[in-house]
Amino acid sequence: MTNSPLPSHPSSLTPRLSPLTSVEATICAPATTSGGALGIIRVSGSKAFSIVSSLCSINCNDFAANTVHLVRLYDTSPDAVSTFRQVIDEVLLTVFRAPHSYTGEDCVEISCHGSPYILNKVLALLIENGCRQARPGEFTQRAFLNGKMDLSQAEAVADLIASSNKATHQIAMSQLRGHFSSQLAQMREQLLKLTSLLELELDFSDHEDIEFADRSELLELSKTVDTHVLRLAHSFETGQALKQGIPVAIVGKTNVGKSTLLNALLKDDRAIVSDVHGTTRDTIEDTIDINGITFRFIDTAGIRQTTDEIEQIGITRTYAAIEKARIVLWLIDTEPTKEEIREIQERCKDKALIIIQNKIDKLESHLSSLTSHLLKISAKYGQGLHTLESAIHQAANIPTLQENDVIVTNARHYDALTRAHAHIQRVIDGIKIKLSADLISEDLHQALDTLAEITGGQITPNEVLENIFKNFCVGK
Amino acid sequence: MTNSPLPSHPSSLTPRLSPLTSVEATICAPATTSGGALGIIRVSGSKAFSIVSSLCSINCNDFAANTVHLVRLYDTSPDAVSTFRQVIDEVLLTVFRAPHSYTGEDCVEISCHGSPYILNKVLALLIENGCRQARPGEFTQRAFLNGKMDLSQAEAVADLIASSNKATHQIAMSQLRGHFSSQLAQMREQLLKLTSLLELELDFSDHEDIEFADRSELLELSKTVDTHVLRLAHSFETGQALKQGIPVAIVGKTNVGKSTLLNALLKDDRAIVSDVHGTTRDTIEDTIDINGITFRFIDTAGIRQTTDEIEQIGITRTYAAIEKARIVLWLIDTEPTKEEIREIQERCKDKALIIIQNKIDKLESHLSSLTSHLLKISAKYGQGLHTLESAIHQAANIPTLQENDVIVTNARHYDALTRAHAHIQRVIDGIKIKLSADLISEDLHQALDTLAEITGGQITPNEVLENIFKNFCVGK
Repeated sequence: MTNSPLPSHPSSLTPRLSPLTSVEATICAPATTSGGALGIIRVSGSKAFSIVSSLCSINCNDFAANTVHLVRLYDTSPDAVSTFRQVIDEVLLTVFRAPHSYTGEDCVEISCHGSPYILNKVLALLIENGCRQARPGEFTQRAFLNGKMDLSQAEAVADLIASSNKATHQIAMSQLRGHFSSQLAQMREQLLKLTSLLELELDFSDHEDIEFADRSELLELSKTVDTHVLRLAHSFETGQALKQGIPVAIVGKTNVGKSTLLNALLKDDRAIVSDVHGTTRDTIEDTIDINGITFRFIDTAGIRQTTDEIEQIGITRTYAAIEKARIVLWLIDTEPTKEEIREIQERCKDKALIIIQNKIDKLESHLSSLTSHLLKISAKYGQGLHTLESAIHQAANIPTLQENDVIVTNARHYDALTRAHAHIQRVIDGIKIKLSADLISEDLHQALDTLAEITGGQITPNEVLENIFKNFCVGK
Repeated sequence: MTNSPLPSHPSSLTPRLSPLTSVEATICAPATTSGGALGIIRVSGSKAFSIVSSLCSINCNDFAANTVHLVRLYDTSPDAVSTFRQVIDEVLLTVFRAPHSYTGEDCVEISCHGSPYILNKVLALLIENGCRQARPGEFTQRAFLNGKMDLSQAEAVADLIASSNKATHQIAMSQLRGHFSSQLAQMREQLLKLTSLLELELDFSDHEDIEFADRSELLELSKTVDTHVLRLAHSFETGQALKQGIPVAIVGKTNVGKSTLLNALLKDDRAIVSDVHGTTRDTIEDTIDINGITFRFIDTAGIRQTTDEIEQIGITRTYAAIEKARIVLWLIDTEPTKEEIREIQERCKDKALIIIQNKIDKLESHLSSLTSHLLKISAKYGQGLHTLESAIHQAANIPTLQENDVIVTNARHYDALTRAHAHIQRVIDGIKIKLSADLISEDLHQALDTLAEITGGQITPNEVLENIFKNFCVGK
């Protein structure tokens, strides 16, 4: 019988690197895209101060932490030095001292004019003077390795930067602030308690007169943890929908006004957001935000031009669009047949179906068969659009997020939660069938390890780290 | 006789606004484009501290100048407050105190995560709490109005941000550091000396026994200034060429390898610059940098596909390309006729013509008639490209720029210099034909005023300021 020592509860915020960190390369990268008034270049590592100092004829070591200094940055390239020291830019240096910086190392942020020439030149000079260009996410990776944040928080940084609406922003911010981490810590604590109880049982197992520990308590505890794990795992579907936008299909016969409706919805949304926009929305195509949730219209380009196809809803492309959708908008302007109604209801069994009567500006007649469910609009004149938007929002069935709510948006986390659930299920089964404590303990170990993967409390393999950080942007 | 008081030499760096500045709006704008790891939002004005403080539950007034603070920025929108204070981001605030800031006003720079959602939200909150969104260039305009820089320096800020190669960067930096301004000040000083001498003459003009002042000294002084003004005005051609890229045409018969050569030159350049690039070059099409100077290839797309046209150099499109070019690359692979040589030389009379023999990997024969001027390459195998690049650079005939060199790149400056030259010419003529001092004085005044327009030392009309700053980027 192996009574292996159980892992102690790893503090999620202790440094993960030995003091050898100091020999790591000093890294640099632009933290902004070019094209703005300003450009920020980040430098982090033990030589950050000396390398930046050598470009600026100052000594960063003289500067207090968290202070800003206006200095000239000179060209130190060999051919430049021979004649005179060309000023590349007048820059602001912000000095952060280890461990009180984003990465936990000495850091300098160089704020220059946002010219591509200047940004490239400053980067080239930093590299010539001993920096290495940072890999994507390497600053955050160092923050993780230096114990500034756990792995799920590091991943939240990338999600936060990518967040494009209120919901995704709120989920990422909650995760960054450690709400997910603390729920994981709580579950691990409960599993550790379970472990202690099992150990107690093991210690006394040679005493014939002592029965098994009270396994009903064990059962209850493991079920509590399992419910929690499952709730988090189930939130992944919502998380994915929020992250990628909730897929919506607009279907209906030709000339019923599908593209007019789409354009009206898009235009309505853009009008709302354009007043304080400093940024471009060019890349966001065919999505609308309703109350902070993004809805993504499934590309029905083919469907929109179906003049040469049979004029009925039952065409293959429409079926494909419905298949991909979570919400289906069925646009009609004449009384549908019972067969049509039956067919669409059949195809939308697990979807939210919204039936919309368009062209109410033209049509007098009511469509009798569908009165109770019918939403009436005029896409052309914008009538009924706000009611439709509310209906779409409601159909998404996304719970109103509270500040501390945890929604899993990351496939890595979902995978770990699913595996943890499987392990805990075996624990539950083991308790039920009165398996011996040491066998149950095996599964408990694995559940603990699997949950620890999420925050990276255990040693995280390099390839896992690489996978996580390679999708970050440069400079973060 | 009007002996109008001459304008005193305006200090170029005294505040141009009354203390009423303090009632100006507090402005905000993003200083970076979205899409990076970080986004910077600038706030400037008398309420900058109080507005930012109200979003962050801190008091910026407590912060020392030029210090950085990590704070939480909260959603203060009415609907948000009712439930809880949603954290929008954890941001770094950098505090600058008037007059020691870029604009000369109290300033805060908010460094947030570079999410478009966050940037828009923070901007919206600043506006809700009393900021006005800044117009393009408004921060720099305030810097000018508050006497932090003169007008030509303000314009250099925009040029610096737009600079994309060593030459344009160097010219903008020299202008920003005030080298142009100080040359203008020097010329104005000389004109003022001229004015004093003329005034002396006026004062004594009723004494019959006193002759005109020594007008040879006046003549010499005005000629010196005129030479200086002309030198600066003439530099505008170079300035324009450097700013827009020097136009190069590649001409030659079909299948001689024109597009292969263009691609080889483009590729060669991109290979050199790509190693330290954090930015995209996507927008820079068909330009190459040689030793810090940009060469722009005239779009000869039509010429490249001339299979259905007469296979000879004398086609209309080629002529048009030559017309626009400053440098012409004539690509040949067979002996040209005397007629062809005569024709291209005729058309390139005021251009730099480089004759290039391509396909030296294939051809054995020398092209006898052109040996002395012939540059031999293989565009396909990259042979001779570096020699060709040197030849192109030399053909541009751009003087090697020294750090303090002033090159005029701005049409407004060129216009003012041209007008100043005309006034000074009239001064010179007046001195020569012994015009009375008061008449000469008129032109001197106008020369002085015209030069002062460049730095904005005089009162600058609002429409001029608007014209200057409207082309700036937002946030600068």
